[in-house]
This record gives sequence, structure tokens and C-alpha cells, in this order.
Amino acid sequence: MLAKTQEKVQAKQATGWAARGQSGVLSPFKFSRRATGEKDVTFKVLYCGICHSDLHMVKNEWGTSTYPLVPGHEIVGVVTEVGSKVEKFKVGDKVGVGCMVGSCHSCDNCKNDLENYCPKMILTYSAKYYDETTTYGGYSDLMVADEHFVVRIPDNLPLDAGAPLLCAGITVYSPLRYYGLDKPGMHVGVVGLGGLGHVAVKFAKAMGVKVTVISTSPNKKQEAIEHLAADSFLVSRDQDQMQAAQGTMDGIIDTVSAVHPLLPLIGLLKSHGKLVMVGAPERPLELPVFPLLMGRKVVGGSCIGGMKETQEMVDFAAKHNIVADIEVIPIDHVNTAMDRLVKADVRYRFVIDIGNSMKSNN
Amino acid sequence: MLAKTQEKVQAKQATGWAARGQSGVLSPFKFSRRATGEKDVTFKVLYCGICHSDLHMVKNEWGTSTYPLVPGHEIVGVVTEVGSKVEKFKVGDKVGVGCMVGSCHSCDNCKNDLENYCPKMILTYSAKYYDETTTYGGYSDLMVADEHFVVRIPDNLPLDAGAPLLCAGITVYSPLRYYGLDKPGMHVGVVGLGGLGHVAVKFAKAMGVKVTVISTSPNKKQEAIEHLAADSFLVSRDQDQMQAAQGTMDGIIDTVSAVHPLLPLIGLLKSHGKLVMVGAPERPLELPVFPLLMGRKVVGGSCIGGMKETQEMVDFAAKHNIVADIEVIPIDHVNTAMDRLVKADVRYRFVIDIGNSMKSNN
Repeated sequence: MLAKTQEKVQAKQATGWAARGQSGVLSPFKFSRRATGEKDVTFKVLYCGICHSDLHMVKNEWGTSTYPLVPGHEIVGVVTEVGSKVEKFKVGDKVGVGCMVGSCHSCDNCKNDLENYCPKMILTYSAKYYDETTTYGGYSDLMVADEHFVVRIPDNLPLDAGAPLLCAGITVYSPLRYYGLDKPGMHVGVVGLGGLGHVAVKFAKAMGVKVTVISTSPNKKQEAIEHLAADSFLVSRDQDQMQAAQGTMDGIIDTVSAVHPLLPLIGLLKSHGKLVMVGAPERPLELPVFPLLMGRKVVGGSCIGGMKETQEMVDFAAKHNIVADIEVIPIDHVNTAMDRLVKADVRYRFVIDIGNSMKSNN
Repeated sequence: MLAKTQEKVQAKQATGWAARGQSGVLSPFKFSRRATGEKDVTFKVLYCGICHSDLHMVKNEWGTSTYPLVPGHEIVGVVTEVGSKVEKFKVGDKVGVGCMVGSCHSCDNCKNDLENYCPKMILTYSAKYYDETTTYGGYSDLMVADEHFVVRIPDNLPLDAGAPLLCAGITVYSPLRYYGLDKPGMHVGVVGLGGLGHVAVKFAKAMGVKVTVISTSPNKKQEAIEHLAADSFLVSRDQDQMQAAQGTMDGIIDTVSAVHPLLPLIGLLKSHGKLVMVGAPERPLELPVFPLLMGRKVVGGSCIGGMKETQEMVDFAAKHNIVADIEVIPIDHVNTAMDRLVKADVRYRFVIDIGNSMKSNN
């Protein structure tokens, strides 16, 4: 899995920052991207969010990394060139690319606008593209992508704080819709107040849902209620609080990727409630079956969203003024940002100012 | 939990078989039931199925048993008396009672015909009724029940082989409906070919669904395919078979109540597939989260069904000639039957011929 890629020199010179091995340390990297194909959109990258999975991938923690690895799948910028058959975009448009850049277009999932569940889905970085080249992500000055996987960024959505929506946003928006947790008056819990969780609170609130943040850290209460406008806050280690909230929630979006107990969360659900996991703990969790039976409850998963829904999510965010809370950094600070991310020392998402800090020399 | 009930002598003398302690051994037991209330139906019990939970309850394995304990919640018979305000039944009607005899009638679940999920639902035996008496089940010659919890048995449904539908039947029918696994052309797996599993195969087939039985025992293949008309059979320990079937099922009804691995079952599901647990292992199961995310799969539970749906299930069974495969025994053989049930030595359900074997002496 650590094989060096055979570099084929392509038409467009690009500059990025890449990890060269599983230390995960990033440094400047010259590479090439394909010429703008007839269905391709080429854009100058202006901002790219730092997702927690970037951290896993640069260190090969999932065993799937190919080096050199240019991370980044929360990418926004301005179109500089479009292919002859591109229908949706023109030069100057503000656009974004999220976690995927290809899929088979013929399976049931693709036919149902669920390219994210296509078995042949191609990730934005560290994957093989149709032409056998390796995909490189958005910690780079230039992107070339099939227009099917490009999203239009509405004019009123800030590019920097909007960038994280392309992964963090769709990751929480899609399950709120799919699991029917988007009805006004419903009560939804959000477990974990990080990059995903803080955006989940904002989307759920905009849908008219009552939101309770559930966290191990009592010191996040003020932030959750005053800043993010959550309706209430539960300290997950406080048994009295948890007990008092038993059976009150229609659903829970669980963003925690560490191993943690599910039983207390299942207990918070009403009958027929849904606990939706969007973080992936490395080891299996303990699933108590009896409480699932007694309340006809489900534990489900969800993974980003299809392209149609990603556009819908971005449009919804623009309409409701939803953006991520971010800390903008220059590309030179990316390794420091990664170190801080390990310690969850960010409120709530780092975004790299690629446009003003990447030295392109092209 | 082992408290002896305070026996209040009521209007109707009844004879049953009861366990007196956690040895679980059953013996003849004289007790009384209430007079027929204005909304009550009184009926002569003809048959009662032996459910696996009867076995747990007579031995107090769930810690909720009250002795003396008269088990039985798959009860059918003929109406002998009705209260003045009973609307649905008359003397001579064939009727049944399943797992519950009361609920609050005012909570959201009750209002939605889901009395089975009412927090105040009253079980058919070893529970406190509204009048503070203890409920006694169907291993007895006489039942008195609120008509709301009484089901009409259609004329063409055999009473003996129909009895197990009142628990085993609704337990598998309800999740097939609720989880949307009832569409013709779908592919559903049934894990475990016992009392629940064999009825699940029959209901799913009648819904037009393709059914694959999944079992640890290769020797159940012929039975599953030839006798129960399952479309295919997988030996869960055969990795090649399981691998070949990956991603082929819309849903799975898992009837196994022993601790068992979920990962291979989740692997059998298509994207968006549903693994529904209807058996309750005593210890938590290992839940791998990553495969749930990658395919937006869910693991859910289901527990019997509401009264409206139970009637619908019985009517569906009558229409499609669905009954349980049974071995009829006289009440004197009940302890032997319980011993055989521990070893799963029955195809597939014991039914007690109460009408012809219970010595009533009333």
C-alpha cells in the first residue's frame, strides 16, 4: 500500500503540499494534472479545509495511502477553463469539489444520485483515476475535475468558511434528510462538538429541529448554547442529566470516531428513534440488542452524500447563512495545524488560504 | 423479583400449569380469573404455543418472573362470554391472544396502533394488570381479556398451527413491513431456522420476496429449500458461500438469540440494506461501524407488533395459507417439550392441545 506512484507527466503543472511517507509531514510538491477534458472543469484553488480524514490519510492509518499524497477534499476556487462539453459551468464561476471525483455512472446507486455509495467511486486523493493516474487533493493550486463532481458555490456563501461544507456539511446534512430527522419540531441530539458536530447543529436548527448537544466536556456548554444556538446540552458522563433525558430524542447524529458506549445514546431515543453514526471508530462498538428491540430503534451509518444532494446542501446553507466556524491558515502552517487537530485544538475547522499562500512558481 | 403473588380470589375458577420457582418445572395449578368485564371477552382455550420466551420466563432468566407463573402467549380458543360493551366479538367466535393484554391507550405509541411499544404495556403473563392482579398466560383452560387485545381467527386458519402466529408470526411479519422488506422482487435473508425463522420464510415468500436462509447447520438446507420453499441457503460458516453472496440482500431478519457475529451479515446487505434483530442475545454484540457508514446500512430491532397489525398479519396468513409447522403435545408432556426446546429439538413449534388434555375439574 506504500508503493510509490509511477508519475506520468501530464499537461498542467501544479504545486501542492504532499506527505511522502507515514510520518505524515507535508512539504511542497511539484506534480502535474491532466489537460482539461471535454467534460472537465479546471479551477484555481482558493481555499481548502483540513478534514480529520486528511490526518488519517497522510499517516496511512487506514492502510490505503499512496505516497506522495496531496490531501484535501474541501476544495473551493474559481473556474479558469472548461471543456467543450461542459454544460453547467463557465470561466469565473465559483465552484467546489468534495470527497469524490468519479464513479461508474451505471450502478443502481449512481442512477439514484448516490455516487458516494458506488462501489467504483473514486476519492479525490490517493485513488486511481480512470486514466490510471493517482488523484491529488486540494492542498494544491489547481484542480481539474469532471463537472459531474463539481458543485456550484452560491454568490453569498463565503468561500473560506463554505469550504468545509463539502465534506463536513454533507456528512451531517445527508443523514438528517435520509433518516427523516429534518421535520420541524423534532428533537435531535448531536454527539461531539467538532468539525462535523458544530455544522450538524447549524443544519438541524435551520431545519426547525430542536437540538441537544451531547458532549463529554461540560466546558462546551456555553459555546453550544450561546454561540451555536443549540437548545440544550447534556454532559454524557453526568448520569442524572442523561437519565432525565431518556426517551426524548427522535434521532441522534453521532460524530465521534473514538470508541464509545452506545447504550446511553440508544436510551436517549424515543421509540422508533435513530442513532446515526457518521464517525468511524477503529474497533467495533458494543451493541446492546435488547433496547433496540424494545423501542424498535435503529443504529445506522451514513457517509457523505451524492452530488445532487451536495448541491442541495450548499444551496440550503447559502439560503440559511450556514458556514463552518473556521481558523484560516497559510499553507506553511499546515503541519502545525495537523498537530493541533490531533489534540482537537481548533474551533472548529482549519481552512488553508491556498490562493494567498501557495507559492506556485508555474 | 421472586415475590409470591398475593392471591385474590376472583370470580372464575381456572386450571393451568404453573412454574413455582426457577427450576422452571411446571405442574397443575388452580387459580382464578376476573369476571367478564364490560369490555372483556372470555374464551375457552383450545391451543397454546410454546414460545422460547416461556422457557426463559419459567426459569426467571430475565429476572422479571413472578411465581407461580402460568406461561403461554400464543393462545387460541372459542368465545364463551362477552361483556356488555364488547363490539367485535360474540359467543362462538374463534379468537386469539398474543403477548400483551393491556396498554395505556393514550401515549403516542398507543395512538398509532403500536401498543407493543407503550411504556405501560401489560404482558400476558407474569405482569400486573390494571386491577393489581397478576396476569396468567395460556397454559390454562380459560382466558379473560379486554377485546382490544383479542384477535379474530379467520375460519380457514387451523387453530393449532395458527396459534404460534400470535407471537412468532407477528414478530417477523411486523419488521418485514416496517423496514420495507415486503416488496416483490426484493431479496431478504432469514438467519436461524427455528420457530421464528421458519415463519419468516413463509411470510416473506408470500409477499413475493426472494428468500435466502442463513444457518450454521448445513443439514437444514434441504428442509429450507424443499419444504419451506426458500430460494437459496447459505451456511454461515462457509466463507466462500458467504463471500459470493456479499452485497446481495435488501434486508435480513435475524432470529438468533445467541451471541453471534454481525459483520458477515452486514456484508450480505446491499447499500441501504437493513439488518433487523428480533432475537435478544444476553450480551452486547460487536458492531463494526465502518461497514455501516460505507453502505448507509442500519441495524435495527423489532418486538412483536400492535393489535391492528396483528389482526392484519393473521388475516394475511389465512389468505396465503400460512401456518407454523408444529408438533402438538398434551399438557402432561410440557416439561419434556421444554427440555427438548432447550436443545432446539423441534420442527418448529410445540403447541399444547389444551382443549383435549387439560383436566379442568371446574
